[in-house]
Formats: sequence, C-alpha cells, structure tokens
Amino acid sequence: MTNHIVGNHALNKVMESNILKISQEARAAKALNPEVIDATVGMLHREDGKLFKYAVVEDLLQHLTDPEMYYYAPVNGSKEFSNGVIDWVFGNHKDAIVKTFHLSVIPTTGGSGALSNSIYNFNDFGNAMLIPNYYWTPYENIAEEAHVGVETFQLYDEHYHFNLKDFTQKAKALAIRQQRLFLILNDPCNNPTGFCLSKDNWKDIIAVLNELSRMGIPVILVHDSAYIDYQMVSHELSREVYEAFLELDDNILAIIAFSGSKTFSMYGFRIGAQLGMSKNKAIIEEFNRVGDYSVRARFSSVSRPAMSVIGKIFSQPNQMSLYLKELNTAVDLLRNRIAKFHECAEKEQLTMLPYGGGFFVGVETKNPNIFKDLVKDGVFIIAMPGMIRIALSSVKLSEIDRLVSIIKKHV
Amino acid sequence: MTNHIVGNHALNKVMESNILKISQEARAAKALNPEVIDATVGMLHREDGKLFKYAVVEDLLQHLTDPEMYYYAPVNGSKEFSNGVIDWVFGNHKDAIVKTFHLSVIPTTGGSGALSNSIYNFNDFGNAMLIPNYYWTPYENIAEEAHVGVETFQLYDEHYHFNLKDFTQKAKALAIRQQRLFLILNDPCNNPTGFCLSKDNWKDIIAVLNELSRMGIPVILVHDSAYIDYQMVSHELSREVYEAFLELDDNILAIIAFSGSKTFSMYGFRIGAQLGMSKNKAIIEEFNRVGDYSVRARFSSVSRPAMSVIGKIFSQPNQMSLYLKELNTAVDLLRNRIAKFHECAEKEQLTMLPYGGGFFVGVETKNPNIFKDLVKDGVFIIAMPGMIRIALSSVKLSEIDRLVSIIKKHV
Repeated sequence: MTNHIVGNHALNKVMESNILKISQEARAAKALNPEVIDATVGMLHREDGKLFKYAVVEDLLQHLTDPEMYYYAPVNGSKEFSNGVIDWVFGNHKDAIVKTFHLSVIPTTGGSGALSNSIYNFNDFGNAMLIPNYYWTPYENIAEEAHVGVETFQLYDEHYHFNLKDFTQKAKALAIRQQRLFLILNDPCNNPTGFCLSKDNWKDIIAVLNELSRMGIPVILVHDSAYIDYQMVSHELSREVYEAFLELDDNILAIIAFSGSKTFSMYGFRIGAQLGMSKNKAIIEEFNRVGDYSVRARFSSVSRPAMSVIGKIFSQPNQMSLYLKELNTAVDLLRNRIAKFHECAEKEQLTMLPYGGGFFVGVETKNPNIFKDLVKDGVFIIAMPGMIRIALSSVKLSEIDRLVSIIKKHV
Repeated sequence: MTNHIVGNHALNKVMESNILKISQEARAAKALNPEVIDATVGMLHREDGKLFKYAVVEDLLQHLTDPEMYYYAPVNGSKEFSNGVIDWVFGNHKDAIVKTFHLSVIPTTGGSGALSNSIYNFNDFGNAMLIPNYYWTPYENIAEEAHVGVETFQLYDEHYHFNLKDFTQKAKALAIRQQRLFLILNDPCNNPTGFCLSKDNWKDIIAVLNELSRMGIPVILVHDSAYIDYQMVSHELSREVYEAFLELDDNILAIIAFSGSKTFSMYGFRIGAQLGMSKNKAIIEEFNRVGDYSVRARFSSVSRPAMSVIGKIFSQPNQMSLYLKELNTAVDLLRNRIAKFHECAEKEQLTMLPYGGGFFVGVETKNPNIFKDLVKDGVFIIAMPGMIRIALSSVKLSEIDRLVSIIKKHV
C-alpha cells in the first residue's frame, strides 16, 4: 500500500542529480578549504569571491513602499514589469514584432516557472518534447513532473556547427509520430555548453517548424533566453535572432522564457516571465487562459519585491542607464575569464566546446567518473552525460590556470 | 487546430473568479473613492488603512547578507527555517509528535505551493478530492490544474456545528469508490467562513480516516493551517488539534500546509512549507521523493530572503519575542473588528456564520446577484456559492457599521 500513497504519474520521479544540491556541497567544501574551486552554479561572482549583485537593484529594494514589498503581486504583472519585459526581450526589433504578432506576458517564478508552466500546458500526458543532446538536466525533471518525456537531437555536427540535419530528422519524426512538436532551445549562451546559434541557424530551424505547422501539426517553440544578457556581443546583436522569428508560421506558438534571476542577479527571489507570441490571436488567447490559470493554481502569484524592482528599472531611464553600466561590468568579468580559459586550454591542449557567451563553458569527456575524479583534486563542476559544465560565473581569474590543468588531467 | 495547441488536460481550465483580481479592482475603486469598503483580500491592514507589516520582519530584511538575500535558497530549506516550522506548527505538542511520527519539511512558494504540490502528487489523474461545501475557491483551480476533481460534504449541521454525519457518508463513499481519500481541511479560522473545529471534531474526523485506512485505502489528510496564528485563543490552544493527530492510523499521510505569507505578513514574497507526517517511515520517504522533485521541477526553489528572515525569527529567541508581541497586536486588531461586527450584526439582525478567528467572516445568502448589488453600494466582498466572504483583515472599525447595514440590505 505504501507504494501507492502517491499518484500513478508520480511513481517514478527520482531526482538523480540536483545542481543546486551539488552546488551547496561545493560551497561547503570551499568554506572548509579555500583552495577548492567551485565551478558549479550559475550565479555570477566577482573576483573577490562575492556575489555580483547590481547596486541599482539593491538601492531600489531598500526604498520600496509597503505595497511594493509586501502585497501580492498583480496577477498579470504590473504594467512596468510586463511592458518592460517586451521592450527588454526584443530590443530594437520590438516594433517589427509588435506589428506582426499578438503578444502576452505572464509573470512566473523565475525562468524555471515559465518552462514548467509551458511544458505542462502545451503537451499531452505521455508526449515527448525535443531538446538538444547536451541539455540543462532539470529540463528532464520538469518534463517528467508534467508526465512528458524527452527526445534529443545532436546539437553539433562534426565541425561543431549546429547539426541542422539531425535536428530536421528528429523534429519531423517526432512531430509526425505524435502530431505535436514542443521544442526547447536554450540560446544564446547555451547552458551547459556556451554555444550560440546564429541568425541563419534560427532561420533554418524555423523553416523546419513552418513545414510541420503547415501540415496541421501544433508546433510550440520555447526560446529559453536565460543568459541572453551575458552574450559576448552588444544588446542589439544578441536580439538579432528575433528577425528570424518574424518568419514564424501563423499557427506556431513561440514562448520566450525570461529569467529575472540571471538578468538582475536576483536568483533567490524567483522572478521571470513567459512571453507568448503568435500571429494567430486565438492561440495567444489560449496561451493566456492556461498560463494565468497555472500561475494561480501552482504558486498563486510571483515575487512582489522583485517585480517592483525590475518594473522600476525597465520603466525609469535613469535606473536603466545605471543598470546597463553595471551589466557591462558583469559581462567584462566573464570576458576576462573566458579569455584566460582559452589561453590556458591552448597551453594544456584541452579541447573545449565553442563558447559564445554566458555563465558556462563545456568540455566533452568519456570519463564516467569525471565528477569524483575532479572532486578528489578539489574541483567541483557539474557532470552531464558526455560532458562537464564549468561555471565561469563562479570561478576567479586566479583559479583558472589550476582549474584547466586539473580538468585536462581527468577528462 | 488552434483548439489543440494546449494539451488535452488543459482544454477546460477557465479561471471563473480570481480573488486576487477582484481585490485589485476593489483597491482601484477605493483609490478613486475612499468611501468604498474593500473587504476582499486576506492581507491584514491596520486602522489607518496601511498594511500590518511586522517591524521585526522589516528590520531583519534590511540587514540580510548578500547570500541570505540573493542566493538560491537551500533546496530542503535552511535548518533554521525547516526546524523552526516544526517547532512553530506543533508548539508544546512537538515532543509528543516527534516521538510518534516521521516528519519532513519541504519549503514551498506559499501555502498555495504546498497545496498544489500535494494535490498533484497524491492523487491519480481523474480522482476527486474531498473538501467542505464552503471552500476557498482556488482549491478547485489547484485541483483542476492537477487534473483532479472536487467533491464536497456539508460543513455544518442544522445547528451550525460540524456535520460529522455528512462528512462520514461522503468520505466513505468517495474513498471506497476510488480507493483513495484526499481530504483538505482549512482550520482553524476557516477561509471563507471563520469556523473552527474543536479537538473533538478532529478526533471524530480522524476516527473515520482510520477506519478507511485500515481497509487498505490510501488516506491523505491535508491540514491547511494558513490562519492558525490568528485564532482568538492562545498559541497553545490553537495547537490542541495536534493531540488528535496522535491517533492517526499508521498508514495515513498527514500534510500540514504552513503559510509564511499569513504568519509574517509576507504575502508577496511567496514562502510556505509542506510538513509531512506519518507513523510509516516509507510513506515519509515517498513524501520527500515526490515533494523535492515537484519543488525543483515547478518553481526551482523558493524565496531566499523570506526563508532567511523567517529562519532568524524561528531560531533567535529575541526576534521571536519581538514577533510574538506584534502578533498579539495583530490578533487584537481582528478581535476588535469582530466584536464590532457582532454588535452591528445583532443590531441589524444579520445572521452570520460562527466565527472563531482569522481574517474572514461569512454570511449566507440566496441572492445570486449579491456581488453586483454590494458593489453598487460601494462594498467589495468575495461572493461564493451560497455565501459571501467578508475580509475583516482589510476593513477599519469605523467602516463596520456601514458595512453590516449594506450587507443586511442585499443578503
């Protein structure tokens, strides 16, 4: 009987690896021994080892009114927040997007909440969703929680370019078999690899989606853009992808998962949004109906203090300008670390996956014990099937030399 | 095709009434006309119309370290938080409970997150859960989101005492039919009625649950204790119910939903917990497995600043003593308002439902247009089938006289 205290759909949920837990262990180990290198979690840290928080966030937090701090957040988000998300996400492509698409913003508990709601609402129980073979492992857990499976395509071809051929094959096979395609792409600055798709890659991908949509198959494209603000290019260039989105077929639903955690270093607050876009108004009405419902029925509402702070940054030009300056500093931190990493990797002849920005760099490995081997040498990373994920966000410049040689030793 | 962009299980989710949205409308109306009486939402306000925030919370919030504020919250909760929840929930019955039960605390996004995770994990798709006929309407939405239905029993008998007979009949019929009983009781200070079960009521309820459990039927009892700290009795007396819990059959899983929103006026932060208790260790292991998984796969983690603040209040006697003083003031606010409400109701011969504490008082009505009729007279309440819910938490003493006569006019 005790086997069935849980519902049938929950019988097999077992969290095999929890990145946040491994990261807690790494922090504990580093507290005991400062020589330990903690390259586990996606929270940006400065060279002095302290969290990279935004002064503008801190300052706004300290001056919120009681309603801005303690009240329940408005169910559909404050105007400052929700309109701000649209401005921020699309940048200088906003006008073209607004002209072409119906849009809707639903605040969620971080980017994870956006993914979780989307996977649950836009799949049938028992469906599988499509993701690349290197993926942020919680995708699998979020899918399993929604009683949805995972199928993968090869992210890279033999030249470590985007593998359009395998993507096309897998997408078509899955879509035709189950008469639904739900695709998640974490881009740019892919977690766990650091890979960035080009605008042309996106055009190719969208051409495949359009072909399937025109067969009458529901197609849902989730663009997980968590690390978009940490790409090694300008704000404008990082948003170039949305030019490709203009070509989306009428009946496709695209959902952009925005992460306030990453963009504003507000990791522990739990704020994000799902931004739905479709040329078909009825589809956005469906997006609204089920999305609002899920927010209310899963976590009731989202972090009010975080929504207030982000709304102010988005809507007040002076706050935005302070923020942009700090964001530059943040990106420079990562730029210096990846330059150092490249230099050391070259010296050690360590092959790494192509990096275009973000918190993580990936190294492929065939060592099944890589995690334990590295821990013995005082290095904590996240091991995933076939690769390790190294969080540049949480290592210091001065540690990178040692980090790379230890990795080289075990990889 | 657009009909099926969503999964089959999400086809019929429509949010008919959203309390938070109605409350936003009420606030907007009051901003235009201060004569409007806003008796909609469960956030405690002072006599000057301002939020009743806790000074101890405010002070701790302003002095958190960066990790306490910005980092992801520990997945299983900080020790200060999780142990503190156990101490706080059980009060002077803790030792007896700890001796008798296996316990586990899982932090959630408010009490709602605890309910949502529990309903999803401990029902099969298509099951129905049991609740009283007067209920907080989001229960129905949370169930629908989890693809679970709702059946009700009559809360009151003809004397407005707990209707054990109808409870017993409905519980047995449902449990035997579907071979599972998932029961939610919001007590004490029931939302929406203000009703409080006695310890003897709980003993009777648990006797029924035990009978079903001994037939080999999985029984899950969710005790939604959101308003327990606002009962019109001492902390000790409000926890007396847990004496009855000692009698729970070995194979029953009880889950207490703790609401940090209510207990600490941190509504907009989204913090709470589900506290699992069972005499069967294997059942608590299941509770842990699926609960941890749901947290990670639905909202990733919970509010770190809120967990930090509450952990400090729970673990530092000087902070706790400051908090308890303020809590007394909060309860006195409600005590004065209900006294005034009783006085006015008697004068107007308005029959109200029995009130034992909490933010809400209920009045039965057969007027199907009650909401609109009251709004025309400048009064916002929450209308539910057969009754209205009046939030004492958000009205002033000086408004109660007028409030009661307007209600009397339309009820």
